[in-house]
Amino acid sequence: MMKLMEDEVFRAFATYAAVVMVKMLLMAPLTAFYRFSRGAFANEEDVARKSADERKKLLRSHPDVERVRRCHQNDLENIIPYVAISLLYTLTGPALSEALLHFRVFAGSRIFHTVSYVLPLPQPCRAFSWMAGMLATLSMAYRLFSAVLVL
Amino acid sequence: MMKLMEDEVFRAFATYAAVVMVKMLLMAPLTAFYRFSRGAFANEEDVARKSADERKKLLRSHPDVERVRRCHQNDLENIIPYVAISLLYTLTGPALSEALLHFRVFAGSRIFHTVSYVLPLPQPCRAFSWMAGMLATLSMAYRLFSAVLVL
Amino acid sequence: MMKLMEDEVFRAFATYAAVVMVKMLLMAPLTAFYRFSRGAFANEEDVARKSADERKKLLRSHPDVERVRRCHQNDLENIIPYVAISLLYTLTGPALSEALLHFRVFAGSRIFHTVSYVLPLPQPCRAFSWMAGMLATLSMAYRLFSAVLVL
Repeated sequence: MMKLMEDEVFRAFATYAAVVMVKMLLMAPLTAFYRFSRGAFANEEDVARKSADERKKLLRSHPDVERVRRCHQNDLENIIPYVAISLLYTLTGPALSEALLHFRVFAGSRIFHTVSYVLPLPQPCRAFSWMAGMLATLSMAYRLFSAVLVL
Repeated sequence: MMKLMEDEVFRAFATYAAVVMVKMLLMAPLTAFYRFSRGAFANEEDVARKSADERKKLLRSHPDVERVRRCHQNDLENIIPYVAISLLYTLTGPALSEALLHFRVFAGSRIFHTVSYVLPLPQPCRAFSWMAGMLATLSMAYRLFSAVLVL
Repeated sequence: MMKLMEDEVFRAFATYAAVVMVKMLLMAPLTAFYRFSRGAFANEEDVARKSADERKKLLRSHPDVERVRRCHQNDLENIIPYVAISLLYTLTGPALSEALLHFRVFAGSRIFHTVSYVLPLPQPCRAFSWMAGMLATLSMAYRLFSAVLVL
């Protein structure tokens, strides 16, 4: 085990970063599930075994598939900056309780965001869950800038 | 403060990585601003309080919204690889002046890229700003490979 | 050279992470090549020098361009989580041979995925190459959770 992983804040960071990354990765099989159950594909080679008539019908977009893809895109836009910023924030040596608060708020907000988006729940469920995650990330960025600004 | 953050090159890396990440995060509120001001939404639950007639009109794409979204997408495609590659480049122990040159060229190029894309400025403003950022990233990747290649 | 880079597993991680990141970055010039060769652009300023008639024809989407863009998007969805998770996995101090196996399977699978997608090769080439990369990432996430779980 390397030195960094002996620090408890870093271990907490590693756990939550991996949790939200795996959550994001699972959007791909979810998209595949919707593509197959709704019969909506994007590539000709994906429907090559079907008859010409069926192929034409299956190469289309479907609202449910597009919804999951927008949710996946929102994950990319939010979870990846979180991982980068929380890594740097962790390296400034915050207190464990403060760090865990940030990590848990973010992870919880993104899981609730996915549920709100895919089901979907009525607004402002999705808007508020997105905002909670954004604020957790910006709060860590603020603490990072306070600690190490070198322009 | 952990050991890594005591290194001045690493602190400079952390600052510039957080700056471009926060810049990328701010594309989301900018997209929301264009969605509301142009009246162009993607999800039915976002317009649920409107009358049926209005809902139909508001669920559409708008060129200004799509432009900001393409700019955001370009950020994802360029800023995230920059952060990963500049982290590894920083760990090879470059001179501070050389590292700062790379970080500043990249951060400047991406801010100018966003301005060029969203306003928009005439080409080749956007093309050149994109290319400057790309070259900064590839130059760091080259130095990384020179220092640590293990295949 | 900083301490982390003296570790051979970390150097291998850095090499493979940079290889797949540079591969992902090169999707942008590939998209540009298809945009120019197919005559399919997304922004008005990109075709500003053409006559009004030509402009109208060039502002369109083309199946070949969309295919490269879907491939690029799939890279974002898979390569970035790989880099984050393999960084954390590397910090748990795995054996070099085990780490290299994960890194090589992933890098190979993503290069084969790009070839399968862009040419395209018949299915299930693309599906299997995507799955191999996914399994390598999930296997590293599993080992990471076994080593450091702090919830």
